[in-house]
Amino acid sequence: METVGVSLGERSYDIVIGSGLLSGAGERLRPLLRSTKVLVAADENAMEPHGETLVASLRAAGFSAEVQLLPPGETTKDVRHLELLWDRLSELRFGRDSAVVALGGGVAGDLVGFAAASYLRGVDFVQVPTTLLAMVDSSVGGKTGINNRFGKNLLGAFWQPRLVLADTATLETLPEGECVSALAEIIKYGVIYDAEFFAWLEENIEAVRTREERALSHAVRRSCEIKAAVVGQDERESGLREILNFGHTVGHAIENAAGYGALRHGEAIAIGMVAESRLGIGRRGWREDDHARVVRLIERAGLPIRLAEESGLSVEELLTAARSDKKTRAGAVRYMVPTRMGEVVAEKIEDAMVSPILISVGARP
Amino acid sequence: METVGVSLGERSYDIVIGSGLLSGAGERLRPLLRSTKVLVAADENAMEPHGETLVASLRAAGFSAEVQLLPPGETTKDVRHLELLWDRLSELRFGRDSAVVALGGGVAGDLVGFAAASYLRGVDFVQVPTTLLAMVDSSVGGKTGINNRFGKNLLGAFWQPRLVLADTATLETLPEGECVSALAEIIKYGVIYDAEFFAWLEENIEAVRTREERALSHAVRRSCEIKAAVVGQDERESGLREILNFGHTVGHAIENAAGYGALRHGEAIAIGMVAESRLGIGRRGWREDDHARVVRLIERAGLPIRLAEESGLSVEELLTAARSDKKTRAGAVRYMVPTRMGEVVAEKIEDAMVSPILISVGARP
Repeated sequence: METVGVSLGERSYDIVIGSGLLSGAGERLRPLLRSTKVLVAADENAMEPHGETLVASLRAAGFSAEVQLLPPGETTKDVRHLELLWDRLSELRFGRDSAVVALGGGVAGDLVGFAAASYLRGVDFVQVPTTLLAMVDSSVGGKTGINNRFGKNLLGAFWQPRLVLADTATLETLPEGECVSALAEIIKYGVIYDAEFFAWLEENIEAVRTREERALSHAVRRSCEIKAAVVGQDERESGLREILNFGHTVGHAIENAAGYGALRHGEAIAIGMVAESRLGIGRRGWREDDHARVVRLIERAGLPIRLAEESGLSVEELLTAARSDKKTRAGAVRYMVPTRMGEVVAEKIEDAMVSPILISVGARP
Repeated sequence: METVGVSLGERSYDIVIGSGLLSGAGERLRPLLRSTKVLVAADENAMEPHGETLVASLRAAGFSAEVQLLPPGETTKDVRHLELLWDRLSELRFGRDSAVVALGGGVAGDLVGFAAASYLRGVDFVQVPTTLLAMVDSSVGGKTGINNRFGKNLLGAFWQPRLVLADTATLETLPEGECVSALAEIIKYGVIYDAEFFAWLEENIEAVRTREERALSHAVRRSCEIKAAVVGQDERESGLREILNFGHTVGHAIENAAGYGALRHGEAIAIGMVAESRLGIGRRGWREDDHARVVRLIERAGLPIRLAEESGLSVEELLTAARSDKKTRAGAVRYMVPTRMGEVVAEKIEDAMVSPILISVGARP
């Protein structure tokens, strides 16, 4: 078992990582929560068997754990399901000292986190991620939110959990594709923050991919440490936190233009990282051979390095989607580009420079 | 013109109070806001003529002010209208540096504030209250929220405005009843925090009631100062802020049991203050004659000091409503009771002690 601290003053919290943690969740939460009222809001797919272990542990520790099931899939991250959670909490007459636990992947975490942030103007929140992607990304950092028909995560709050409980045993039943998809974010942490971790991944990517306990735990811990360090310095994304967007300007554009669900988030980000890394070559000293290392590692992780032939996405579609991304300011598109392994910076880059790069990752001219 | 500062670290802001401020709103907001994109979300009743003055001033100062009208009345404070605002902001492609201005009373301020708090996880927010109640109460302190069928303000966020612009000229057209209703909160500030202000009100209540400019401005300023001082010490209502609930445990119970809209908020709070003041007599040194001063001032303000004969509310209905109030903890009902003029404390009081007091303010035994 390993613990990573997230330093945010009075909003500080721990991420606990280990195999089989769920059965001890109740005891661990007792000293952290202010009452015995807990609602476990769980992705249906995570409920059995993980949810049952969690709920049993909570009840054994004296919590009156209620359960609210949520349908799996991105469409659950909408205002209707937010209202469902609000109604349930209201109906249960939960007070300000009650708590909400999110069990599942990023969809459950983001939605349930926003419900916790807004019910009675904020109640305690606990993240229990059951996917590798949620463990290394969405469960850390306090971003919560839902989608509307205009875009993803347009509505939400910054709301830090009281605890993140990452039980790596839950990953054993995770579909291979989901696991591979998460490797994109793990590789990202090496590129943006830690050359040594990147080198470690080059040595151990197969072991992580096949979920060898020690390698997997290390990858999760180091990813959480890096995200925690970044978020600790910039909770509300006014500066440094932007580096976490490496691969995401192009990646989100791909997701947006292809239609959400056409490819996995990690696959889009993988192609986005290839593009944004290539954009950086020669710009601030980023070297061709380091770029090649990034591409090679992405490939070895089992992730795509270019768009599928049949995607049919054009340069123009991708640029339009990138421009409309909420992270762009005043029309100029900002990309995170590497300067050396373990460091990226934001650069505004003109479309004319970006087009050939998009073509090189498979976009139609 | 007077300015009251609210000290909340990096979330500090000013409340500017004066007659005719709306026409200078644009110039005043220029240095405070980060872009020229502003959505004015306005109560239909406040739009003409105040909204037009405000929008013209914003446009003259270079803002691209858009307008979203909101129907008047408490039913607007619901998730449907929250979604309407979210959609409008999304459709306008407002970025993180844009701002939302609430124009109207407490309903507009609470709803629009929550939309500002949650759109893109928080954009700049400006309060332009046009009712006396909103000026002295809801526009200050950062509480935002909406209702659902289970209760009032169950969903929301703490989200501080960048500026509160209280133009007392907007009160000239305010219906008499609305103005009188707000006097309950103004009197409350004297009882809970400032014996001198209470004495000033005893001298000037008629002048405030008839909206003499100097008296009105002083009452608004001192009310805002007191609320700002309390909120500055306890932003998220974990301690001191509770004193603002004087009169509200019984007041909310009355509103709840009578059905919202049966009487004005200020009328319910006025009766609530009479009851909670009477509850305090002899308890911690609160004197019968000071209690009589409170009752007398409430009466002179034109507010009720007991339930109307025809209300038909019973002691049991009121106690049930008080118990279900979200501010009660673990079943024990807490009331704020005065100890001396200018000071109140929280006391858990058993129903048996409360019943005769409720009968004395007109509840059925």
